[in-house]
Amino acid sequence: MVDKIALLGTGLMGAPIARNLARSGFSVTVWNRTAAKAAPLADDEVIVAASGADAVADADLVIFLLSDGPTTSGALFGEARVARAMRPGATVAMMSSISPETAIEQADRLTGFGINYIDAPVSGGERGAIARALTIFAGGSASSIEAARPALETLGRVNRVGGVGAGQLVKLANQMIVGISIEAIAEALLLIERGGGDPAAAFAALRGGFADSTVLRQHGGRMVKLDHAPGATIATQHKDLRMATDMAAQLSLSLPLLDQTAALFEQASAGADQALDHSAIHRTLRARQRDAGA
Amino acid sequence: MVDKIALLGTGLMGAPIARNLARSGFSVTVWNRTAAKAAPLADDEVIVAASGADAVADADLVIFLLSDGPTTSGALFGEARVARAMRPGATVAMMSSISPETAIEQADRLTGFGINYIDAPVSGGERGAIARALTIFAGGSASSIEAARPALETLGRVNRVGGVGAGQLVKLANQMIVGISIEAIAEALLLIERGGGDPAAAFAALRGGFADSTVLRQHGGRMVKLDHAPGATIATQHKDLRMATDMAAQLSLSLPLLDQTAALFEQASAGADQALDHSAIHRTLRARQRDAGA
Repeated sequence: MVDKIALLGTGLMGAPIARNLARSGFSVTVWNRTAAKAAPLADDEVIVAASGADAVADADLVIFLLSDGPTTSGALFGEARVARAMRPGATVAMMSSISPETAIEQADRLTGFGINYIDAPVSGGERGAIARALTIFAGGSASSIEAARPALETLGRVNRVGGVGAGQLVKLANQMIVGISIEAIAEALLLIERGGGDPAAAFAALRGGFADSTVLRQHGGRMVKLDHAPGATIATQHKDLRMATDMAAQLSLSLPLLDQTAALFEQASAGADQALDHSAIHRTLRARQRDAGA
Repeated sequence: MVDKIALLGTGLMGAPIARNLARSGFSVTVWNRTAAKAAPLADDEVIVAASGADAVADADLVIFLLSDGPTTSGALFGEARVARAMRPGATVAMMSSISPETAIEQADRLTGFGINYIDAPVSGGERGAIARALTIFAGGSASSIEAARPALETLGRVNRVGGVGAGQLVKLANQMIVGISIEAIAEALLLIERGGGDPAAAFAALRGGFADSTVLRQHGGRMVKLDHAPGATIATQHKDLRMATDMAAQLSLSLPLLDQTAALFEQASAGADQALDHSAIHRTLRARQRDAGA
């Protein structure tokens, strides 16, 4: 039974998730490294703890929404001593996007503390988090996922996709498809623009055809309007694509579209556009043509 | 006013379109080079003509659904003498996928015959043609498109995207997005498969998330089931992608995902899989890993 939930990391995703869990009747305690970010949640009947260890002490379920693999491992096993502070029999739900390999390592180490582990990264972004419309890629034992399900289901659709690490693997696949699709749409709109067509009319026509997708509707629209307020940033998308290229390299897989897309996001991440929405890859692609003297 | 319609090319797309126009009350005459393919349409109150010139003689609107640019130009201006046989003031609707450049050339030459021209290539495939659910990318003068609209609207959604050639340009952009998306999904499913995940469970989870698209639902499903009955073939997709790379080259545009995808479809088109559905690019990508010794 999940009653008490601790949530570590109250950023773009963590804050609305903590709020929604509290509204669903769970007892929610949060911790964030920068305490000022967590403070506003106290108005929503969320308890703000002074340390990670304090936050998790009574929790049945500890949700991680910290930024990456090293940060989550650091919180679990480093100074914050979250693993040591958790009660045996409780469950970690790793909603941060980390590599499948790191997820498996964390799960193995936590077994020594008597703590269950599932990975539960999400698709749907801040908008999905607010609207309780996340797609959750859950990896872990069926019993651990069932234990966490009553909480996770208040946030969106829970899909068990395999054992520990499988959730992260499917999240990588999701990010690959999203990242490649964004660049595909940027290339298509650039062909239309340079070919003398009208990108706005084309965008309206492409929606509802065979090329229709969530990415086309959201990111294609942003490209046509030149509106690149994030959303998910180029830097975050680049981090995810790099995890995917690392995974492909470990598996000796040749995935040419992934490689090309990761390279373009790498270029964009090195420049001033890194904090823009990932639809701004459109600008990077256009600038690249100028550099090539086209 | 469109009353009499001629339709040239009764293949996968042309046959259901001719049937639907006849059912909508238009007087429809068809011609096909291989007469046996057109014959069954006679049961649907469609008139089957003995030659292209016979088919178009009385027509207000002549719809082309022949296979490519050279074939359509050959029918218009070569031995079939369609341009000469049409009555001045009638309109050509070029629904075949041809290059924007060829569309502009055809329109210019037809001006000399007093014939109007629009390009009206489609997205939606055979299934869309049967269900009257095509997306039509219409390029040409507003008045010519309005003249053809009563007929075209019985087939799907008509979107004016610009002057002559613009419809073909947007169709190329559509095919780019579709082709790249198919390969993106193939790469993602391969990562899942090799990474120890379950492609079927992943596919179910990815649907409804941010990676969701028409291509994911249709082609991702075919990849998971290993069902590659066409649909649109690898050879056709390759032809469209090659038109897009030609166009990009003329515009001195560097479009890396288009180039990579065209190269993979080129490889697939050279082999036994060319007549399979374009979702079979999944097989080509997997075979490529074996060739690389992975």
